Amino acid sequence: MQAEIITIGDEILIGQIVDSNSAFIAQQLNKIGVSVYQITSVQDDTAHILKSLKEAEENADIIILTGGLGPTKDDITKNTIATYFQDTLVQDASVLKNIETLWKNYIKQPLSQLNIDQALIPSKATALMNKVGSAPGMWLEKENKTFISLPGVPFEMKALIQEEVIPRLRKKYKFPYILHKTLLTYGIGESNLAEKIETWEDNLPKHIKLAYLPNLGKVRLRLSAKGNVKEEITKEVDHQINLLLPQIQEYFTGYEDQEESLEALIAKKLSAAKLTLATAESCTGGKIAENITAHAGASSYFKGSIVSYTEEIKINVLKVPETLIAKHSVVSAEVAETMARNVLQIFNTDFAIATTGNAGPTKDNTKEEIGTVFIAIATKNTVYSQKFTFGKPREKVINRAVNKALELLKKEIFKNR
Amino acid sequence: MQAEIITIGDEILIGQIVDSNSAFIAQQLNKIGVSVYQITSVQDDTAHILKSLKEAEENADIIILTGGLGPTKDDITKNTIATYFQDTLVQDASVLKNIETLWKNYIKQPLSQLNIDQALIPSKATALMNKVGSAPGMWLEKENKTFISLPGVPFEMKALIQEEVIPRLRKKYKFPYILHKTLLTYGIGESNLAEKIETWEDNLPKHIKLAYLPNLGKVRLRLSAKGNVKEEITKEVDHQINLLLPQIQEYFTGYEDQEESLEALIAKKLSAAKLTLATAESCTGGKIAENITAHAGASSYFKGSIVSYTEEIKINVLKVPETLIAKHSVVSAEVAETMARNVLQIFNTDFAIATTGNAGPTKDNTKEEIGTVFIAIATKNTVYSQKFTFGKPREKVINRAVNKALELLKKEIFKNR
Repeated sequence: MQAEIITIGDEILIGQIVDSNSAFIAQQLNKIGVSVYQITSVQDDTAHILKSLKEAEENADIIILTGGLGPTKDDITKNTIATYFQDTLVQDASVLKNIETLWKNYIKQPLSQLNIDQALIPSKATALMNKVGSAPGMWLEKENKTFISLPGVPFEMKALIQEEVIPRLRKKYKFPYILHKTLLTYGIGESNLAEKIETWEDNLPKHIKLAYLPNLGKVRLRLSAKGNVKEEITKEVDHQINLLLPQIQEYFTGYEDQEESLEALIAKKLSAAKLTLATAESCTGGKIAENITAHAGASSYFKGSIVSYTEEIKINVLKVPETLIAKHSVVSAEVAETMARNVLQIFNTDFAIATTGNAGPTKDNTKEEIGTVFIAIATKNTVYSQKFTFGKPREKVINRAVNKALELLKKEIFKNR
Repeated sequence: MQAEIITIGDEILIGQIVDSNSAFIAQQLNKIGVSVYQITSVQDDTAHILKSLKEAEENADIIILTGGLGPTKDDITKNTIATYFQDTLVQDASVLKNIETLWKNYIKQPLSQLNIDQALIPSKATALMNKVGSAPGMWLEKENKTFISLPGVPFEMKALIQEEVIPRLRKKYKFPYILHKTLLTYGIGESNLAEKIETWEDNLPKHIKLAYLPNLGKVRLRLSAKGNVKEEITKEVDHQINLLLPQIQEYFTGYEDQEESLEALIAKKLSAAKLTLATAESCTGGKIAENITAHAGASSYFKGSIVSYTEEIKINVLKVPETLIAKHSVVSAEVAETMARNVLQIFNTDFAIATTGNAGPTKDNTKEEIGTVFIAIATKNTVYSQKFTFGKPREKVINRAVNKALELLKKEIFKNR
């Protein structure tokens, strides 16, 4: 069973936005056993959309489109689908009712004709109710193929995929099971690793695929397999991993958890153990707090953060001694550790993270190079820090600091607990 | 002149990574006047890559491939290109020298056969030197069409695009000029905006395209045009913008290309006037601070934030009276205003923003509905707040609260100053 994803919108093709919708949809489809054959991004252009629909129908059983469903004239997906299905648009009463409710509760303005017209869908389509926006999803069938059209706004698309598309697909089709397992290795290059495990790789059964995913000192090894019985597939892949592990023992650091982000793992552990967390952020500017609070339920373990973006705030609010800053500079292990220790006390938490660094582009009045970040972890009993050089540009430094801070915290939390 | 981008790799099609390479390449091509007709992501599969090469050749003049050039067996792009061009692989001396240099300076290990084989390229190809990695870029021509194959590692791909691909394309072809201008508006919905400017939109010349890009309370309007003479195109688009501006005066905040985002406007005004800002964030969890500090130079006006994610922190750190919370609940105008007033005092700033709300998915112990957010603005002389209902889901509530808070702050900052 194969799917094709078509993302529609000039903004993708001029590089104004990065298409992150496709990766989300592909993940969700993979989970239920649907492989994605191809992802195609096309312009807001009738002929081009029609052409890609035709090609997708030849290649795939399930065709998912996103984008081009807004109320304005540049949004042409709905009319194009009607043309493709030799159909006309008709008003869907349930969609209109949903739009009226949204307008009454949130927009609090009279409905315009453009809003009302969003309730028009091809007569052959089933509306998929978009509870968080006015553009409905649409489900159309043609012989045994299914066409699904979704809005391009990520949170609207995500809600529709999870609440409507996946359950309906599972009801309609019987899917095989797809298993991916990704092993993390550290400290060996891609080509050396490949030579080390060559015999094992050559002996892999045909239906188990291996991929090397190298990235700055780490190489991920992904094993993929597909079959009808989950237990069989899992057993086979595990067997191959058992053969592999002794050969890469010294480089193997664990499995990549595709379902569980660092934040999710931290969240689960902290809430279960009724432990709490605070952050004191300088160069990360609140982004660690933001990442943590993006998850529902964060208030059960995350108490908050002090973002101290100037020396004055580090001194006056975080109570870092002025003399310590004068001696070591704000970008130092000593200041990072004091920030962590103090925010732990001020917020009365079990764990604290602190960051101080120079994200660039200028050096300001620190001794350290651009890209230098100190990250400290404090608990009731201990505090320690590590120095990192994250390079350039600013955005990369901030993001790597956030990831590294969460990684260090996770290690600390899972240590002996 | 049209291009097609083909990204190769199973990791894209299973959603393990988001393809951000395409957006970068599309941006760079657009800048020199090349439109991207389509972006296609395909599997590491010979037949599939061959098929997409054939289709791309029919649609486009310039075909750029990324990915699948590593040293391991799952990387098949190079062999597939050789097949497509009915060619064989030969060792390229300059590529081998580059690999030897990289290994000597950075890897400090003997070259393996797999590394040496990375110097093999199709005999008809010109190598594009990858100074930061071992996989070379390749340039092939077929009649007047150009095929370019690049490694998928983003920083290797980026360096090759900027240093090799763009200069060579400009030398080979004569490109038209492509202009995009994006206007930012705040405070009006997509459909209302569309109705307001309908006559103007209907009278736009055919070669100027308009797109609406809505995103949580902001709508971006993008005008695109293409032509041979830069000055003419710019003049025409500017003329249309001059006709448009009086109609959207109260919503228009600036141009995206000129980096006049809300944060940038706030930054400019505050640094020029030597004024300072702090935030006290509950439901936005540090995201306002993060947005502000994403801009270089923020430390000249942004002192920091107190993220108070629990009642306890609002009381103990932000000094919100317990009785006030008991009387009005944490999600209230009174608490928002006290948070703003207090963080202004604690951080000793000229302006402060505070947010408190219920982002969902559960109501917790507040009286207010999910999606309700109070945003307060404080200055040395005044404090006020507004109540908003931002709907669902969580992600949308947080993002709309951040946008709205920055919008209110901008209004306050620009008022009588």
